[in-house]
Parts: sequence; structure tokens; C-alpha cells
Amino acid sequence: MSSKIAVLGAGSWGSALASVLVENGHQVNIWTREESQKNEINTNRTNKRYLKEFKFPKEIVAMTDLKQAVSGANAILVVIPTSGIRELAKELNKIIDRKLTIIHASKGLEQQTHKRISVILEEELSDDHTEGIVALSGPSHAEEVVKRDLTTITAASLNQTSAQYVQELFINDYFRVYTNTDIIGVEIGAALKNIIAIGAGIIAGLGYGDNAKAGLVTRGLAEISRLGLELGADPLTFMGLSGVGDLIVTCTSPHSRNWRAGYQLGEGKKIESVLSNMGMVVEGVSTTQAAFELAEEHGIEMPITEAIYEVLYNDAEVKYVLRNLMQRKGKAE
Amino acid sequence: MSSKIAVLGAGSWGSALASVLVENGHQVNIWTREESQKNEINTNRTNKRYLKEFKFPKEIVAMTDLKQAVSGANAILVVIPTSGIRELAKELNKIIDRKLTIIHASKGLEQQTHKRISVILEEELSDDHTEGIVALSGPSHAEEVVKRDLTTITAASLNQTSAQYVQELFINDYFRVYTNTDIIGVEIGAALKNIIAIGAGIIAGLGYGDNAKAGLVTRGLAEISRLGLELGADPLTFMGLSGVGDLIVTCTSPHSRNWRAGYQLGEGKKIESVLSNMGMVVEGVSTTQAAFELAEEHGIEMPITEAIYEVLYNDAEVKYVLRNLMQRKGKAE
Repeated sequence: MSSKIAVLGAGSWGSALASVLVENGHQVNIWTREESQKNEINTNRTNKRYLKEFKFPKEIVAMTDLKQAVSGANAILVVIPTSGIRELAKELNKIIDRKLTIIHASKGLEQQTHKRISVILEEELSDDHTEGIVALSGPSHAEEVVKRDLTTITAASLNQTSAQYVQELFINDYFRVYTNTDIIGVEIGAALKNIIAIGAGIIAGLGYGDNAKAGLVTRGLAEISRLGLELGADPLTFMGLSGVGDLIVTCTSPHSRNWRAGYQLGEGKKIESVLSNMGMVVEGVSTTQAAFELAEEHGIEMPITEAIYEVLYNDAEVKYVLRNLMQRKGKAE
Repeated sequence: MSSKIAVLGAGSWGSALASVLVENGHQVNIWTREESQKNEINTNRTNKRYLKEFKFPKEIVAMTDLKQAVSGANAILVVIPTSGIRELAKELNKIIDRKLTIIHASKGLEQQTHKRISVILEEELSDDHTEGIVALSGPSHAEEVVKRDLTTITAASLNQTSAQYVQELFINDYFRVYTNTDIIGVEIGAALKNIIAIGAGIIAGLGYGDNAKAGLVTRGLAEISRLGLELGADPLTFMGLSGVGDLIVTCTSPHSRNWRAGYQLGEGKKIESVLSNMGMVVEGVSTTQAAFELAEEHGIEMPITEAIYEVLYNDAEVKYVLRNLMQRKGKAE
């Protein structure tokens, strides 16, 4: 059955997900704050800044008017940087006039509050407006999804009916969606893998190889799981697509902007110049701060996160990351 | 304290581990069945067939006489293909004249019996000859270890004193050893990751990208863990260095011969020609058969292993691997 979906955010991931939805026969509006991007999409069907060589299907309509974009929608897909989620949710709450499925595909934690994205959405949207909140997450470079490369992904929600609805919306031959009820684990894994991706980039930028990278990712997974468990996640979730899967894709592929930022740090650049070079939001940078603070608050040992925090926020030498991976003498695993 | 170690097997991994031991101040004999390899090592200090651009430290002595090689040793490190382990253990049992620590760094399961390597060693070596049996495993390409790239690895044994002894033997600034008491989980992870590596190679050879690879590895990890749990392993072991860690390094690096074999299969070559091209043992091929049979015997669902088995042994199309990754409709994760 065809649904009407409002995709809020026209970065690389929003564009890719919108095009999957259109291929599956749904009606899609894509919303952006930028007039120039709206015009680029509606006129040229391109997204030059975020997805080179991609063409939007002709059925997609871009809009800058949020009310118009969500009008009549059965579901809203929020896919903007974490820092803008609360503000957007406040705006949405004024506009939505009935119960909708709220999906998000963003990966991060709120600064200061350290809250997960679904929690922010829940806080800002009235119960009369939300049918269920679903997090869509997994190993999925947008660049490959738009080429119809095979992708597996998780739709997580406390509300299983909503998770299944989202699964039905997105699933097709090349985009395989699995449901999961552990939204805490899925969102924590999604957010924190970006920290480890920065670390993997640093290791590579320092000139280390695959053994060191695998060691870092494995020990990164362990510390993500420790924090996740403390926050109420099922530790097995971290062995799944949104945990190990997303770690692998983010830490071993040049498509990842968090990895690329780390790589430049490893080469000796300073974070300010790295970020201005990138020209895109690098979620892992602020997530590192949030996770560092959460770990302190809960008394969880997170040596890799701590080392990356010191590099990003206290100008520590990048070699410190390596040292924190290998320093302990004679430990059990 | 300096120990005397006999390294049995002069492939790439045996050579790399022998050189770590020498750097750590131990006396090392390396044993090979081939007279020509013995001469190459003792004369040129090279291992052209298995490790290009590597030079053995001058302290290492190569021998073809097994009795001479193990004479006076404090520990024996067995690092030969799985298929030769039982025969070698039988020979050792006749030669050893006191209790020794037995270490192995091989990765596979015995054909027909489906036994782990430590079990074979335990069966063939008398209790009077074994102080403890330790499996050394983790994400560790030999090519990077000999360049002193940072590597993290697990020493697993039911006998914690033996595991700690092996940790002390090998640990140094760039080679970080962690102990683990779950030798079942460590050996199952070590063996089965080679199956998934063949699958990851197939996916790449078929032209698929990082999303598909991450999905395959993640779902591969899940089926390895299911079988491991059934066989008595701690499922958390599969989140560690010998599980996720080794999967990452084997599935994402061209150094892996299992991955390379899979890649050629993905390109459309037949297994016979792939294996004759390689000229080295590809452990994953026989491990696939053993794991397939174990899964049937225990009633464990292992769709990826099954698909690779069909490709290797029943001439199924390589696309079948992909189909088994994505076929299920609308499942929970």
C-alpha cells in the first residue's frame, strides 16, 4: 500500500532514503531549510553538495515550507544533524494535526542532556501526534544505497507495530530491513560508533594497519557495550547490524566522514582545520563529548572515548589514542 | 626470563611469531619438514614463499629434525595447517620427555570429527607431557606483525597459569596479549571466521560494496555465536578479539587468503582453479564443511555457512550466498 512520507532533511542519507521510498511506490516530499537546495532538487534533480552523481527520482518534490511538507503524511522521517532535532521537533509539534509514525535516521546524542534522539522526539511531540517512534539504523553508506547496492538495516521501536510499518515502507530487493525492539541499544550503537570511527581514522592517519584497526574497533565495541548496558540496552544488540555492522562499515570505509576527520587528525592536522575542510557536520565530534561525560557520570571505563576526547577537546597528541589502546599490562580480555 | 621455544611450522604466521619471541629475548628453534626451507632460513634468513621482504632474526635456527627442535624447550608453538595437527601431535608424544606448555596458533576444525585443535592436542599428548594447552588467536596479519605494526591478540586456556605464561612470552610494545579462559569460544571464532571471510570475498568479487560486506559479517557473527553457544562457548567471547576482531581483519583486508579465494569465486572462477592458483592452504574451505556438518548435527541455523558450503561443494552459483543473506522477508533481527 502506498504511503505519503515527509522526509525532513536533504543531506546524503535523507536523499538516499527518500529515493528508496519512491522506488517502493510511496509519495515523498523532501524538506530542506535552504531555498537554493529546494530549487536544485526540483529543477536539476541533483544534490551536488552531499551526493555526487545522484539524480532524485522525478516523483520527489522538495519544499522549504515545513507545514506543506508534512501535510497529509502518514509518516515523517527526520534525518538532520542531532543538534537540530529538538528545535525541529518543537516546530513539528505546532504543525502536526493527528497521529503519525515518527521515524528518525540520525546518529548522535544531545549535547549537555546526553539524550538519545527518540527521547528528544518523545519529549517535544505530544502523544496525540505520535503513533510510534522508530529509529532506522545500520551499516549503510548513502552512496551505495543510491546505487542499489545490497544494504541491511534495523528498524527499532518500543512499538512493534510501528517498527513493522517502517520495515514494510522501506524493504525491497536491495534494502533489507529487520525489526528490533531495543531502541536504546540501537541508538547508543548508532551514536557511539562515530567516536570509534574517528579513532580508526586516527590510527590509519598515523600509518598503522589492519591489525591495529581491528583491535581498536573490537575494544571500542566493548566500551560501547559497557555504556549501553548501563543505560538499559540489551548487550546482544551491539552484536547486530546497528552495532558491529555499523562499526565495520564506518571504520573501514573512506565514505565515512568521521573516519576521514580522524584520518586528518592522525596526519597531524588540528581539529579546527579538519572541520572547516570537511564542510559537513561530523557527528562523532560532539558525540565524543556526550559519551565522555556519560561515562564519567556512570563510572564506566571507556579508554578509547577518553583518548579521543582528549585529542578533540584538550589538544592531546594523537598518539595518545594508540597508547590508550595498548597501555595496560597483562590484562584479561 | 628467557625461555626456550620450539616453533613448529614455518609458514607466514609461524615465522612472524618466532620473530616476536626472539625480539622478546627467547631462544627459538623453528621446525619445517622441508629441507630446502630449512636451508633458506639458515642461509638467507628469508621466507620467500610465505612472507616476502621478511628477514628472520639471526638468532633463529631452522631444523627439520623434530626431536632436535623440541629438545630442552619450555614451550612448543604448533602453527601448521589443521589437517596436519593430529599427525604432528602423535609424533610429538613419542619425543617429549617432560611437561611442556603447548601453544597453538592454527585456525580450523578437524575434518570428520569436527574437533577443535586443542582437543586434538589433548587427545594425542599424554598428560605427562602437557603443562597446559593454550590457543593464541586474534586479528593479526603476519605481514603487519613483522613490520612491528600494533597488534592485539588473545591467549586462551582452561589453565590460567599457562595462559599468563604465554602472555608473558609474547607481550611487548607492539604485540599486546590478553588472556581468556574461554578456549572453546576462541577456537570456534578463529576457525569459523574463515568461512565468513570467503563469503566477504565472494560479495566483493560479485561487485558489491561496504554495506553488503558489513551485513554479511554481522550476520555471519550471529551464526558463529549461535553454534559456539551450542558447543559450550561464552557468547561474549565472539564480541572480542578472536571473534569480531578477527572477522574484521579477515573480511576487510586483501592480506587474507580466505578472502582472496572468495573474491576469485565471486568473479566466477571454480574452486579447483582458485585453490591451485593460491598454492597455500585455504583453511576456510575445509572448515566450511566441518561447520556445515556441525550445524546440521546440532540443528543450528547457519544460512551463510550453508550457502558457502553449496558453492564450494555442490557447485552452486555464487549469487546463492547473497540470496541467503537477503532472502528472509520481514524478519526481526
